[in-house]
Amino acid sequence: MLERFKVPKKDRVYVEEQKVRLVTEKVFVHLGLSQDDAKINADVLITNDLRGVESHGVSNGLRRYVDEYTNKKLNPNPNFSILRESPTTLTVDADGALGTHVGPWAMQKAIDKAKKFGIGAVAVTNSGHLAGCGYYAMMAAEQGMIGHCMTAGGALNTVPTFGSKPLLGTNPIAWAAPAKSMPYFLFDIATTQVAGNKITLAKRTGAKLSPGWISDTNGNPIMDEVHPPEKFHLLHIGGTRENGSHKGYSLGLMNEIICNELSGWGPGPVHKNNGGHFFQAYDIDAFTDKTKFLSDMDDLLEHIINVPPSEGHERVIYAGLEEQEEVLKRSKEGIPYHKEVINWFETYCEESNIDCDLR
Amino acid sequence: MLERFKVPKKDRVYVEEQKVRLVTEKVFVHLGLSQDDAKINADVLITNDLRGVESHGVSNGLRRYVDEYTNKKLNPNPNFSILRESPTTLTVDADGALGTHVGPWAMQKAIDKAKKFGIGAVAVTNSGHLAGCGYYAMMAAEQGMIGHCMTAGGALNTVPTFGSKPLLGTNPIAWAAPAKSMPYFLFDIATTQVAGNKITLAKRTGAKLSPGWISDTNGNPIMDEVHPPEKFHLLHIGGTRENGSHKGYSLGLMNEIICNELSGWGPGPVHKNNGGHFFQAYDIDAFTDKTKFLSDMDDLLEHIINVPPSEGHERVIYAGLEEQEEVLKRSKEGIPYHKEVINWFETYCEESNIDCDLR
Repeated sequence: MLERFKVPKKDRVYVEEQKVRLVTEKVFVHLGLSQDDAKINADVLITNDLRGVESHGVSNGLRRYVDEYTNKKLNPNPNFSILRESPTTLTVDADGALGTHVGPWAMQKAIDKAKKFGIGAVAVTNSGHLAGCGYYAMMAAEQGMIGHCMTAGGALNTVPTFGSKPLLGTNPIAWAAPAKSMPYFLFDIATTQVAGNKITLAKRTGAKLSPGWISDTNGNPIMDEVHPPEKFHLLHIGGTRENGSHKGYSLGLMNEIICNELSGWGPGPVHKNNGGHFFQAYDIDAFTDKTKFLSDMDDLLEHIINVPPSEGHERVIYAGLEEQEEVLKRSKEGIPYHKEVINWFETYCEESNIDCDLR
Repeated sequence: MLERFKVPKKDRVYVEEQKVRLVTEKVFVHLGLSQDDAKINADVLITNDLRGVESHGVSNGLRRYVDEYTNKKLNPNPNFSILRESPTTLTVDADGALGTHVGPWAMQKAIDKAKKFGIGAVAVTNSGHLAGCGYYAMMAAEQGMIGHCMTAGGALNTVPTFGSKPLLGTNPIAWAAPAKSMPYFLFDIATTQVAGNKITLAKRTGAKLSPGWISDTNGNPIMDEVHPPEKFHLLHIGGTRENGSHKGYSLGLMNEIICNELSGWGPGPVHKNNGGHFFQAYDIDAFTDKTKFLSDMDDLLEHIINVPPSEGHERVIYAGLEEQEEVLKRSKEGIPYHKEVINWFETYCEESNIDCDLR
C-alpha cells in the first residue's frame, strides 16, 4: 500500500491482534451471529488488517456491517441454498449473509471440488460485502492450490472509459499461488485505480489523490493531485484511455459478467443489486507434478527479488511478499489503527454493553 | 486500437479477405504444414486482421513464423502428446508447434471438457507464438460458453515495478462471453501498456508512444511522448507505481505462474524458454439457466452503450464491440494493410514460387 494511505504516526494506536480479534467477534455475536460464524467473519477482517490491507479490515468495514445488520439488510443467521450444482460448479443463494460469512464456506467448497475433479468454482448470489478477495484466494494457496476470487461491487461508483456516468463497482479480483519456501504469490486488487475504501482512508489520513485516480462528476479524469473532493467518481486501472483505462474497465466488466451474469444474479448496473461473488480453485496435481511446481515457484520468486532495482527504489517485490512480511511484524508489534477507529470501537461497545479491551 | 497505430491512409493497400487468406495458407503449406493445418493457422491470423487487431495478424507475425520454420525452431508436423489428464484438465507437449497451430485444438479440448464437467482447462508447453489470446477465448463464446486464454510471452522485454531489468513478456490474456443479440464481450489485451507488436507497428506508421508506455534501458519510465527509441523496455499496465503498474505487473505474473509453472514447463524468466499457453472454458448451464444468462448479457451490454459519453467522446463501448463492427466493415471493404506488408508478401512469394494474388 502506498505510504500516503497508511495511518499517520501521530494518529496510531497499536492494538494486539488477539485483542481486536476478540472484540470484533463480540461485535458480530452482539449483531446476532453464532460464536462460530462470528469467529469466521472476524478472521477475514483481522487477517486483512494483519496483512496491512486495512482498507478491507475493521476500520472501514465494521461500522458499515453494524449498520447493515441493524437495518436488516444483512441476515446474521442465513441458510445457504444450492441453486445449481455440477461436479465442478456450485451456485448458491446466500440468504442475505455478509460476504465474509459465506465467502470462507464457498471457497472451501471450490477447493473440495478441485480436489476431486481438478477445478472447482462456486458462484454466490444474495450476499453482502466480501471485504476484498485476497483472503479467499489465499485459502486455496494455504491448501496447496491456485486460488482465484472476484466480487462485483454493489456501489456503482466507477465510470467506464469515455463515459460520463458511473457503471461498475470497484470489482476487485485476486489470485494466489503457493511456493515451497518463499512467501506465496497473492495478487489482490480493485480494478479501479484505487479501492473505494482507500478514498475513505485518504479522507481520514489527509492524503492527496494522484492525477488520473478519480474523475469529476461528468466523467472527466482529474489530472491534478487533489484532496478527495466532496463528489467524484472512480476511474478504472489506467485512468485515461491513452494510459490503458480500457484494460482496467474491461477487467472490471469481466468480473461483472462472471459474478453477476454467470451466477444468475443479473446485471448489477441495470438492477442496482448487491454484486455476486465468485470463488475458484485449481488443483496443481491435476496439471503437473506438485513438488516440481512448488520448487519452480521458489525459483521464479527468488529470481524476481534478485532483479536489481531501478534508481530511487530499494527492491523489486512480488504481490503478497510485503503483506506476509507485514503479518510477521504486526503479529509482534500490534496493528496500527487510527485513533478514530479505536474511538468508534469504544463508543459502540459502551452503547452495546460489550467488553472492549483494546489499549 | 488507438488511431495512431492504424496504417496511415497514404500507405494502405486494401486486400480482400479471401485473397490474403489464400496466400497465407499457401505460405504455411510451403513451410511444410498440411493443407488442413495451414487453414487453421491462417484463420487465426486473418481473423485477427479482420477484427482490426493487426498487431497480431499477418503483418508482424507471418515473416517471423517463416523465419522460425525455416530455422527449424518450429515443427510443421508436430505430434501433440498428453503429459497429464483429469476429467477437467489436460496438459500437453505441443512438440514445437506454432501457437496458432496447437491453440485452436487445445481450446476445443477445454470446451469439450467443460461440456461434460462444467469447466475445462488445457495447459500447453513446448509451443511457439500464439498470436494473441482473443481468437481462442472467442471460440468458446461462439459455442455459447465463457472462454479464457493466456500465454506467457517468450520475449522477456517488460520491467517489473521498481525493476531495472526486464522480467516478464507482454503476457497477454483474454476473456470472452456470449450474448443473445448483442455482439459478444471479447476482452483481449497485453498486460503491458502496449503490446510489443504495437511498437513494431508504431515504427512502421511513424507513430509516437505516450508517456509511461516504455522505460529506458535502466527501467526508468519515459514520461515524455517519444518515437520508439532504438533500445527500451516495455512497462506493465499502469506505467508507474503511482498509476498502478503493480497491478499490470502482477496480472502478468499470474499469467506466468499459470502458463509456465502450472503447465510444468518451468519459469520463463529463469530458463528463458518459450512461454506456455493456457485455455479455459466455463459451461454456462453448469452455473445457471443459459437463456437467462444470454438475455441478461443483452441487458448489460445495451445498458453500457447507452451510458452518455463524456465531453469530447462519441460513445461508450465495451471490449469486442468495435472489433465485431470492424469485421463487418473489413469483410466488405477489404483489410487495409501497409504497402510494406504487401511488398513482403510479393517478394517472399516470388522467391518461394507461390502464387500471390493480393491486389
